[in-house]
Amino acid sequence: MIALQNITIIGNGSVGQYLQRNLSLHNYDIKVVTRDRGPSKSFQEKLASLKGTTDLIVICVSDQAIAEVSTFIGVGNAPVVHVSGATPLHHLSDKHAHRGIWYPLMSLAAGTNPTFTSIPFCLEATDEFTMQLLKQLTRAMGATAYEVDSEQRKVLHLAAVLAQNFSNHLYELAYLEMAKAGLDFELLKPLLLQSVSRLGKDHPAKMQTGPAVRKDQNTIHQHQKMISNQDTLEIYNIMTQSIQKRHDKEL
Amino acid sequence: MIALQNITIIGNGSVGQYLQRNLSLHNYDIKVVTRDRGPSKSFQEKLASLKGTTDLIVICVSDQAIAEVSTFIGVGNAPVVHVSGATPLHHLSDKHAHRGIWYPLMSLAAGTNPTFTSIPFCLEATDEFTMQLLKQLTRAMGATAYEVDSEQRKVLHLAAVLAQNFSNHLYELAYLEMAKAGLDFELLKPLLLQSVSRLGKDHPAKMQTGPAVRKDQNTIHQHQKMISNQDTLEIYNIMTQSIQKRHDKEL
Repeated sequence: MIALQNITIIGNGSVGQYLQRNLSLHNYDIKVVTRDRGPSKSFQEKLASLKGTTDLIVICVSDQAIAEVSTFIGVGNAPVVHVSGATPLHHLSDKHAHRGIWYPLMSLAAGTNPTFTSIPFCLEATDEFTMQLLKQLTRAMGATAYEVDSEQRKVLHLAAVLAQNFSNHLYELAYLEMAKAGLDFELLKPLLLQSVSRLGKDHPAKMQTGPAVRKDQNTIHQHQKMISNQDTLEIYNIMTQSIQKRHDKEL
Repeated sequence: MIALQNITIIGNGSVGQYLQRNLSLHNYDIKVVTRDRGPSKSFQEKLASLKGTTDLIVICVSDQAIAEVSTFIGVGNAPVVHVSGATPLHHLSDKHAHRGIWYPLMSLAAGTNPTFTSIPFCLEATDEFTMQLLKQLTRAMGATAYEVDSEQRKVLHLAAVLAQNFSNHLYELAYLEMAKAGLDFELLKPLLLQSVSRLGKDHPAKMQTGPAVRKDQNTIHQHQKMISNQDTLEIYNIMTQSIQKRHDKEL
């Protein structure tokens, strides 16, 4: 066990606030460093003075600001980590001996409040000490830690965009079609929950249903005629083709 | 309350079996009529002799066979209903005075076993008696009944394809990218569950995150370079454009 009591969080956005709230509940001593608007001690000075006051520094600022913020932090022994899925490890200034990534693979945006234990944390570190500290913290909080290197994390981010961002856009397109017909989107929710709940047991390909995989051209033509929005139609066609090509290959 | 005790299920596929299993649990008397392979009484004769023996006839055969099966059923007073999302009410033979649709908006395919109470049943009927009977049955089983006319049901089916079938295909594409990088797809599941769990509270558009809606061209270019599969790349580009166009309009 590595001694870990004092944690410094830099940034007061949704991720910073989420971590602050949840780490505090577990009796860690949390210090938050933010940019001030007023005339008080400047952000840069506060970062410089962190040296020796903390066991871990977690940078929760925007991706673009991570590199600069890390250079302003005073050099001490505490690991300096960021929480970004899209930012490589080498963006952290190498003046710090211990550097790492503690990336929560979950939306922590305002309005969301996932239980901490449901979050997979993706870990990367320059050294074993930092990796052990991050693992210890993740497990102490009841969450699951995965070692994921920078190349893998890039793929993970791409996969999250494909699977989550794009699905959400499909929900939006379905919502629009349903709203025009006076249908409550809530009707679809149980089906979508069922679909996601089953993931992980099987390859998603095994769970593919619908007219595309059944080659039900009759239903496909009906749907194509029903769709008034050009973008939705284009997406309908390209997804249908992709399903048919992929599932042809596998049969 | 309409007297309803004896229910006849025609068809022994996954939907027929699911309904048979669950209705039996609720102490309805279930008779199942199936096509025989052997030399016993023919399917057609069994359908003709149903007259007067049952309170409700539920056709659970393939969409293409519904119309024909309904013509073979002996005319009695029992409502004749089908369970298909894609088949209009008028496919049921109008020699039956009471006709309806009892469409469970859930995958009941083999390997799935959703709790009955989680299923939204979409109801349509030629007459008030049939509608009341289907509502009564749905509620007695603890599920939720929605009145949905044939035009709306078509839209619902289209929306289910957009939201569920196509999302599942995106999961497949994400799975393939992750597998190449040695990543466990399980890692993404909490994020996807979170995403679907939040639906219904807000318009899905309000929950759109990711590089497309943020106009983060840097990340988008990185992703485009990472994708080796041509179909996945085409889908990436068209979804990104569609998100940007739609969210431009709304800003």
